[in-house]
Amino acid sequence: MNSSIIRFILGNVLKIEGLLLFLPAIVSGIYFENEGIYYISVAAVCIILGFFMTKKPPASQVFYLKEGCITTALSWILLSFFGCLPFYLSGEIPSFADALFETISGFTTTGASILSDVEALSHCALFWRSFTHWIGGMGVLVFLLAVIPLSGGSHINLMRAESPGPSVGKLVPKIRYTARILYIIYFAMTVIEVIFLLLGRMPLFDALTTSFGTAGTGGFGIKNDSFVSYSPYLQWVVTIFMILFGVNFNAYYLLLFGKVKKAFFMEEVRAYFIIILVSVCIIFFNILNTCSGIFEALTHASFQVGSIITTTGFSSTDFDLWPKTSQTVLVLLMFIGACAGSTGGGIKVSRFIVLAKTIVKEMNGYIHPKSIKKIKMDGKPIEHDVVRSTNVYVITFIIIFSVSVLAVSLDGKDLTSNFTAVAATINNIGPGLKAVGPTQNFGHFSVFSKYVLMFDMMAGRLELFPLLILFHPAAWKDLFTKKISKK
Amino acid sequence: MNSSIIRFILGNVLKIEGLLLFLPAIVSGIYFENEGIYYISVAAVCIILGFFMTKKPPASQVFYLKEGCITTALSWILLSFFGCLPFYLSGEIPSFADALFETISGFTTTGASILSDVEALSHCALFWRSFTHWIGGMGVLVFLLAVIPLSGGSHINLMRAESPGPSVGKLVPKIRYTARILYIIYFAMTVIEVIFLLLGRMPLFDALTTSFGTAGTGGFGIKNDSFVSYSPYLQWVVTIFMILFGVNFNAYYLLLFGKVKKAFFMEEVRAYFIIILVSVCIIFFNILNTCSGIFEALTHASFQVGSIITTTGFSSTDFDLWPKTSQTVLVLLMFIGACAGSTGGGIKVSRFIVLAKTIVKEMNGYIHPKSIKKIKMDGKPIEHDVVRSTNVYVITFIIIFSVSVLAVSLDGKDLTSNFTAVAATINNIGPGLKAVGPTQNFGHFSVFSKYVLMFDMMAGRLELFPLLILFHPAAWKDLFTKKISKK
Repeated sequence: MNSSIIRFILGNVLKIEGLLLFLPAIVSGIYFENEGIYYISVAAVCIILGFFMTKKPPASQVFYLKEGCITTALSWILLSFFGCLPFYLSGEIPSFADALFETISGFTTTGASILSDVEALSHCALFWRSFTHWIGGMGVLVFLLAVIPLSGGSHINLMRAESPGPSVGKLVPKIRYTARILYIIYFAMTVIEVIFLLLGRMPLFDALTTSFGTAGTGGFGIKNDSFVSYSPYLQWVVTIFMILFGVNFNAYYLLLFGKVKKAFFMEEVRAYFIIILVSVCIIFFNILNTCSGIFEALTHASFQVGSIITTTGFSSTDFDLWPKTSQTVLVLLMFIGACAGSTGGGIKVSRFIVLAKTIVKEMNGYIHPKSIKKIKMDGKPIEHDVVRSTNVYVITFIIIFSVSVLAVSLDGKDLTSNFTAVAATINNIGPGLKAVGPTQNFGHFSVFSKYVLMFDMMAGRLELFPLLILFHPAAWKDLFTKKISKK
Repeated sequence: MNSSIIRFILGNVLKIEGLLLFLPAIVSGIYFENEGIYYISVAAVCIILGFFMTKKPPASQVFYLKEGCITTALSWILLSFFGCLPFYLSGEIPSFADALFETISGFTTTGASILSDVEALSHCALFWRSFTHWIGGMGVLVFLLAVIPLSGGSHINLMRAESPGPSVGKLVPKIRYTARILYIIYFAMTVIEVIFLLLGRMPLFDALTTSFGTAGTGGFGIKNDSFVSYSPYLQWVVTIFMILFGVNFNAYYLLLFGKVKKAFFMEEVRAYFIIILVSVCIIFFNILNTCSGIFEALTHASFQVGSIITTTGFSSTDFDLWPKTSQTVLVLLMFIGACAGSTGGGIKVSRFIVLAKTIVKEMNGYIHPKSIKKIKMDGKPIEHDVVRSTNVYVITFIIIFSVSVLAVSLDGKDLTSNFTAVAATINNIGPGLKAVGPTQNFGHFSVFSKYVLMFDMMAGRLELFPLLILFHPAAWKDLFTKKISKK
């Protein structure tokens, strides 16, 4: 285990967080709020700590998947710990567990809140809350890879551990340029959304925080009713951008370099849009008679489908009051999630494609037992290893899910609330149904349940294994021995 | 495709069903009930039809997995169709869909009923209802293999398609003797249970039907309150026998031949008992303050855990009123199910063992990427093919499950009812929670939902693929061409 490089990367993560914490401090200056001082203090601590951790260069650049996973998990835990301090120290969120919940919910782009009155928060807190979505969406380690020169070659393992989806495609041979291209696309799309929102006469502050929430597919709003009171134009802009941020970023890369046909040929992207279309249709007809007209039904159906499948979690209406079929569609979409390589959560469309093809192959095996056709995606055969890890992923997911539902059930809430609370956190969505519906919040859970749900949010965002590895005894065995693994 | 052997086996299945239908007819004679005439008429039709179908011997004995699956699925559909006719023709269940639901629920050992007043049924109907559990428990094709001489050698494919669990172990080299040994153990254990129940002063009729329901892990009761009003002694006898019938029958075979150590060494059996023990403990402490004493809490906790994990579905109390944690434990047990090679349903303990080991292996892969240890069970390495098919099984299961919940949601019931209704049918249990709780029934579902749930019961009992194969176009391609596949 190369613990010196882990220390070095964690130090850099802290330095970046310190710098980012100055943004809400600036916001507090603009609005003459006193809370800014807490952001500056925490920023200073982060930078000083980071400075000492990165002073000595790492003994070796050797970096395996194990180190990648541990670094990623620890980075996210550190980020969340320091990120929650301003909320806690300023007293805006008086309980530490609540402050940590809110911050993990932010960084993991979940958007589940423990606050009943969001509008009571200061502007800088609202800004930081939404900005954590933007950081968490593309990932802080991807950012690190884009800006900090790291040699040694195996840093794809960092990106592999942090990026969503069954396999990470390097867009270009150099990991550093891949990371930069991703952040450029991400930044540009965010700016475009801000412009569209401003055109709809949304105030700049709202436009910025909304765009952070959309881009990271997070879902924290700055209003108590989320998106209910905004105009249909703004709702449609957000609908479209939510759906766009749920697309595999490889498609944008292909589009950017003129490979339009190849971008539209991506099976995952096509499946994603088909699922959205079918879901919107079902919900549209199902809620039509509860709405005041076709346009309203279409707006809400599209907004909620876009919001849930991309795991953003904004709400344009209280879907806890919708007919059961529509609710069931939304619950299923929670698990499907967005495309791999997007900022969205859930199990991911590409995994479902692999699963569906595996099932068809299994059935063919009953008909022609000796056939040994490989499963293909985008015309290329899928490696056996990807199929296996997809299967294991889904099964691990289900087991963590079930155990969490059992743990949360100790609070005595009804099954639908427990089930959707876990679904909404492990899939990084935000709202669920009943006690955690769009008009409710997560504040009423016990502290124990809150920690269970925090674990779920983190496990969902990091795609389970990087976090689970922390509980594997071998991960710690030689952490403090400074011995460099020779494997 | 060898369609002549399919015809031949289906004909034999009909003849067996015809003979079995004389049993309820005898019961009707004992109780002077007029309904017996319908059982005799249907029996006659089955035997005549079966006679014509088996008149011409099959053109070839060649028999592959494809034929095995199709034969199994069609046998079960035929069985259920003819089995429901007496209920329907006698007018005791006036709707055909309801009669079919009740019969499929019987043969698949589910025990979900559409009847609100079971006690209004005639004795012969109650007998036939419970007896379908006994037939379905071990399987009619296994019975066929035990009694009818079939040469050709590949008939393990029939047993493979009908028997629960990821892999079918031949106890002895000859499939025919394996089938006989299984039925002998099954019969003997049923008789022992009857004796124990009679010792507790249960009337003979009750003892027989209860034992059929326990042995097949079915769950149809002959009282409206299921097992609530029976004495604690009888409840404990049934608890113990339910749990015993959920054990892998290979263990009994080993015990029978003196291999006691090997029987107790079976990982699945040990895991099964550990799960039961842990669940009973959790529920015991959770319900303790709602019961009148320690003994009552222990009785109910043990009875319900045994009833649900073995997927029997008897109830000694209305667990829909239990605290949420206990309910969540029961819902999780629904999916775990009994041991492979038992008469119980669910996903099966052995599959979960394989899954758990796969997850541990995956985690080790993160730590030591180059390790290639094979997963072991009972000291032997598990074939890669079994691991793969277990993964595919669980994933197919989840997809059928989700689509079913969506389809049933069209009725507008709450999510917990829909979720547990599908869970209780696809896992062949019987009661769920809320609208399908122990004191409720399935009669209030729409006809469409009933057919969805019938499909789920059948899919659960036949372990998905034999039934799904019927929807594969290739399964039918050469059914009518009489050409014998050369693969």
